[in-house]
Amino acid sequence: MNLEEAEVSAAALDAADELAHVRERFDIPDGVLYFDGNSLGPLTHASRAAIARTVEFEWRERLIRSWNEDWLDMPLRIGNAIAPLIGAAPGTVICADNTSINLHKALMSAVAMRPGRTEIVVDINNFPTDIYIAQSVADQCGLTLVAVKASQIPDAVNEKTAVVTATHVDYRSAHILHADEITGAAHAVGALVVWDLAHSAGAVPVDLGGLDADFAVGCGYKYLNGGPGAPAFIYAAPRILADSTQPLHGWWAHAEPFAFETGFRPAAGIKRFLTGTATVLSMKSLEAALTAFDGVTIDRVRTKSVSLTSLFIEVAREVLVPLGFSIESPEDPDHRGSHVALGFGEGQGLVDALAEKGVIADFRPPNLMRFGFSALYNTHSDVVKLTTILAKHASRR
Amino acid sequence: MNLEEAEVSAAALDAADELAHVRERFDIPDGVLYFDGNSLGPLTHASRAAIARTVEFEWRERLIRSWNEDWLDMPLRIGNAIAPLIGAAPGTVICADNTSINLHKALMSAVAMRPGRTEIVVDINNFPTDIYIAQSVADQCGLTLVAVKASQIPDAVNEKTAVVTATHVDYRSAHILHADEITGAAHAVGALVVWDLAHSAGAVPVDLGGLDADFAVGCGYKYLNGGPGAPAFIYAAPRILADSTQPLHGWWAHAEPFAFETGFRPAAGIKRFLTGTATVLSMKSLEAALTAFDGVTIDRVRTKSVSLTSLFIEVAREVLVPLGFSIESPEDPDHRGSHVALGFGEGQGLVDALAEKGVIADFRPPNLMRFGFSALYNTHSDVVKLTTILAKHASRR
Repeated sequence: MNLEEAEVSAAALDAADELAHVRERFDIPDGVLYFDGNSLGPLTHASRAAIARTVEFEWRERLIRSWNEDWLDMPLRIGNAIAPLIGAAPGTVICADNTSINLHKALMSAVAMRPGRTEIVVDINNFPTDIYIAQSVADQCGLTLVAVKASQIPDAVNEKTAVVTATHVDYRSAHILHADEITGAAHAVGALVVWDLAHSAGAVPVDLGGLDADFAVGCGYKYLNGGPGAPAFIYAAPRILADSTQPLHGWWAHAEPFAFETGFRPAAGIKRFLTGTATVLSMKSLEAALTAFDGVTIDRVRTKSVSLTSLFIEVAREVLVPLGFSIESPEDPDHRGSHVALGFGEGQGLVDALAEKGVIADFRPPNLMRFGFSALYNTHSDVVKLTTILAKHASRR
Repeated sequence: MNLEEAEVSAAALDAADELAHVRERFDIPDGVLYFDGNSLGPLTHASRAAIARTVEFEWRERLIRSWNEDWLDMPLRIGNAIAPLIGAAPGTVICADNTSINLHKALMSAVAMRPGRTEIVVDINNFPTDIYIAQSVADQCGLTLVAVKASQIPDAVNEKTAVVTATHVDYRSAHILHADEITGAAHAVGALVVWDLAHSAGAVPVDLGGLDADFAVGCGYKYLNGGPGAPAFIYAAPRILADSTQPLHGWWAHAEPFAFETGFRPAAGIKRFLTGTATVLSMKSLEAALTAFDGVTIDRVRTKSVSLTSLFIEVAREVLVPLGFSIESPEDPDHRGSHVALGFGEGQGLVDALAEKGVIADFRPPNLMRFGFSALYNTHSDVVKLTTILAKHASRR
C-alpha cells in the first residue's frame, strides 16, 4: 500500500473508529505524535485530577486519616480494575511494587510449592530483568536456570521443572507467545507458570482464568498509562492462593497489619502478596488512568490495535522496506502484539531525530526501532504521518 | 510546669527559635495542629511544585525523554540528599522501594557475607514488619531468628550471629537504642549490623560513618516529609559495597541497564541495591521535600526537637498525669527520639475526638497515644495548645 492509498484508508478507518472518543481522555501535547505507549503511557486528564486531589485534599488536608478513608483499600481496588483486562476474577490481582519484585515473589512462591524440583525454565528472549530475577531465585534456592527459546519450552519442561516463566508479548519483536501451549506443557509435567504481561495488559487480551495460569505479573506504566514508574501488579490463581507464600511479606501482607503482632500471619487473599507501605501518589495516578478503559472492552482495544499495526506494516512494506528498513515483527496479526519493530542500521540516530520533530518512538539494541500503537489514543492517520516522516528522514540520510 | 508557666516559656522559646522560618516551607491547613509527622509528614510547597512540574512538563511534555533528562539519576540524587542527615558519605545511600524490601535486601546481603553462621538477632520490640522480614530471611536461609530486648543484644550475639537488626528509635516509646554499643558488640563477634532509621532520619542524628555501621534502611514519608508511601532508602558501608549482593537485582541494579544483557552484572556502587523501575511521582515528591532541610543541620533539628519534647513532658507531668495519663517515653532527652508516647486507657477514642478538632496524633495498641514533634514545623506554642486540649478532653470523659 502506498502513502496515498494509506491516507484514504486511514481516513475511512478513523471515521468508523468506535474508540475515537477515548483519545479525549488523554492530554497529548499539540504537535506530538506518540508511539511509545509500550514504554510510557501518556498523561490522562483523570490522572492529573487524581494527583491534584491526592496532594491537596488527601495528603494536605486529611493527612494521616486518608489511610483509613481511602489508601488502605487502594492496592486491591486497582487490582480489581486491572483484572478484567487480563481475564482474572475479582480479588485475584493486586497492585504493588515493581514488576521485578513481583516476579521474584511469584517465582519464590512457585518454587516453594514444588519442593524437590530442580529447574526453572525461562524464555531466553525474555526482558532481561526477568532473566536476572529468575537466575537469582534459582541461585538462592539451589535450582538450575534453563534458558531456551519460547518455542522450545514445551520440550524443555519435565518432571524436574518447578516453574516456567515467559513474557506473553516479546518486548523487542512484539511476537505473541502461545500461552496455551506453554501453560499446558508446564502443567502436564506438574510445573507452575508465571506469565509476564508487561506488553499485554491493556493492549493484548489474556485470559488468565481460561489459561488456568498460576501467576502473572505486569507493569502499570505502559499500556495502562499509570505514569512514570507506576506500580506493577501480581495475579495468583484462586486455587493456589491459600498455599502460596512469598518471602517479602512485610506488614501490609499481614492478616491484621494494625494489630502489630510479633508473628507473621498471611492475609487471607491476594493481599498476602503485598510487602510494605504502598507508594500512594504513583498508585493514585495509575488508578485514575485505568478509567480510560471505562466502557472499553479489551477485545475492542485489540481489534483497533490490530488495525493500526496492520496498516503500518502494509504501508511500511511498500514505502519503508525499499529505503533499508526491515520488518522485525510478525506479519501475521494473530502473532503480533501492539507495537511494531523495524530494523534500521541507523535506528538510534533516526529515533533521536524524530523526537526533535515531536514524533516519539524508542530504540532497542542492536538496531530495532519500536513503534507502540495504543488503541486508546493513536489514530490510523497517525500511522500514515509516521510512515511519511520515516520515509522522508530515511531518504535524506 | 503548669499551663500558664508553659505558655510563657513557649513564647520565649519560639521567639528565639532559629528554625522558625522553616515552617513556611510547609503548607499545613489553617486550624490544624499536626503531631503525626512521625507517621506521615505534611505537604511542603516544594513537593507540590515538583509534582506539578513532573506531571505537566516531565511526563506530559517530555514523555519518555525524561528518563535520560532527569529520572535515571533520581534515586542516587535523593540518596545523596538524605546522606548528610544520617552521617553517610555521598554515594552510599540510594532511594528505592519500601523499608520492608530494603531490609530484606540488607539482611540477605549480610547473611551471604557471613556463610556458616546460623543466627539472626533482632530487637523483639522492633516494628513488626522488621521482625516478619527477618523471620522470612532466616527461614529462607536456614538460620534461626533470635528475638531479644535491645538491651540484651550485646549478650545475645556470638560467633553464630550472622547479622543483627534493630530500629534506632522505638516506634512506640521513642526510646533511642545505644547504637554504638550494639554495633560494637556485633562487630566484636564478627557479625554485621543493619539499622532501621525509620524514626531517626530527619529527626534524630545518626552517624553511620562514625558507627561504622554495615547497612541501614529507612523511610521517606515520616520526618523526611516525602508524601504518603514515599519510597524508602538503603545505605551500605563503602568498605563492604563491592562484596555485597542482593537477590532482587532487577535491571536497575545492572551495570548497564540499557545494554539489555542476558547475564546480570551488578552496578559498581550503591546502585546495585536498586531493583526495577522507580516510582517517579512518589520519588520526585520526596526529592523536593528534602529541600526543607536546606541550610538546616540535623544537630539544630535535634536541639529544637529535644526542646519541644522536653516542654511537653514537663507540662504533661504536672497537668496530664493527674488526669490518668502516663508518660511512656524516656524522661531523659538523650534517650528520647522526636515523639512522645502517653499511655491512656481510652487513647483511641481520645485520638479520634482530637482529630475532629484538627489536632492530629495517632494511636498504637494497646493504649499508646503518640505525639510526633518535628523541628521543621512544630512550635513550642503548639505543644502548649496540645496539652491544654488534652487536659480539657480528658477531664470531660
